[in-house]
Amino acid sequence: MKKYAVIVAGGSGSRMHSNLPKQFLLLNGKPVLFYTLDTFLKSYKDLQIILVLPEDHIAAGQEIIDAFFNYDRIRITAGGRTRFHSVQNGLQLITEESIIFVHDGVRCLLTTDLIHRCYKAAIEFGSAIPVIDSKDSVRIVLEDGNEPLERSKIKLVQTPQTFHSKILLPAYKIDYKDKYTDEATVAEAFGLKVHLIEGEEGNIKITRPVDLTVAEGMIIG
Amino acid sequence: MKKYAVIVAGGSGSRMHSNLPKQFLLLNGKPVLFYTLDTFLKSYKDLQIILVLPEDHIAAGQEIIDAFFNYDRIRITAGGRTRFHSVQNGLQLITEESIIFVHDGVRCLLTTDLIHRCYKAAIEFGSAIPVIDSKDSVRIVLEDGNEPLERSKIKLVQTPQTFHSKILLPAYKIDYKDKYTDEATVAEAFGLKVHLIEGEEGNIKITRPVDLTVAEGMIIG
Repeated sequence: MKKYAVIVAGGSGSRMHSNLPKQFLLLNGKPVLFYTLDTFLKSYKDLQIILVLPEDHIAAGQEIIDAFFNYDRIRITAGGRTRFHSVQNGLQLITEESIIFVHDGVRCLLTTDLIHRCYKAAIEFGSAIPVIDSKDSVRIVLEDGNEPLERSKIKLVQTPQTFHSKILLPAYKIDYKDKYTDEATVAEAFGLKVHLIEGEEGNIKITRPVDLTVAEGMIIG
Repeated sequence: MKKYAVIVAGGSGSRMHSNLPKQFLLLNGKPVLFYTLDTFLKSYKDLQIILVLPEDHIAAGQEIIDAFFNYDRIRITAGGRTRFHSVQNGLQLITEESIIFVHDGVRCLLTTDLIHRCYKAAIEFGSAIPVIDSKDSVRIVLEDGNEPLERSKIKLVQTPQTFHSKILLPAYKIDYKDKYTDEATVAEAFGLKVHLIEGEEGNIKITRPVDLTVAEGMIIG
């Protein structure tokens, strides 16, 4: 089956106290986005990447591709107003029957093993959403106070959120709603029950300066 | 107001692939537990620590105290069957009106600022439970599938869970139930509404080998 990774790297970087969007910050001398692209390219020889970047950062993204990757497996397209619109833009480039991975560009520490497990589960179940357990107790804020949730039932959701194209492509023809915060919620609006698989503790989002330190520790370690 | 920190260090270390319980593993050459104790001792000059350890590890705990701390502000007591019973044992040593911090020994990266904020909030509201937002989307597992929760309403709970003694001491006279997974749930069973305050992203639990790497990065960084 053909494989596409839609890598969404749309963040503005405001939480990083830096004008540079976080996907371009350097981790051991290479941009965060390098690691993400590299791991996907390594995972399957026939996987194609669609990199979705804000208009202003397309040139910077092209520089990374030119500097680090010699081949023609990455296309860039412009992002939209929200993550939903960015993913929608990326999906417009896919017409073939395929397995589609939608991934946060700033989750640069995922492994090829996770990508392979997502692929297999998406082939079997139509979707694969990697999740991990919370190590902390979990509470929900109510109108009047807060209360505990049963931790064993709470899952923290990662990416790549992975789907068969025959689900994801029609699902993204829907009109946008604010509650579509990730691909799973869009697929559910389309009527699908999403299939959860085990994610990776190390598959963190780089969103704050401390995450870069953490990620450097993990890459070295 | 008098201040007590009940530091619970009861884990068996099974997730660390190590026979040494995780609170005794070395972080930049010093045991994890050293950092936890050190930060509490620095936070207030008149704060006393009650360190709750499994019977088998009391000698190891005493060695840390002897090696790193010159003064007489730390007492050790034996832990119980569950976290609830360990905390209950620790609280038996407190008879004075005080603010009581109950803290995971393996959360060794908390700051004195967090301790100070917990103290102030517990003075004002009777309790202070530090929480952070989830950076990931959150799902709940149901009998038949799973569904998204509104991320802005979900809080990940840390320690020190901090209370006025006049709440926590009577609350812990209750009979144990499995749902008492932390001090907040015990206080709620006693009829209290707990007060949430902002925790710290860096205030992680050291429970897996990768956490040690991460913690070393954060201590150096």
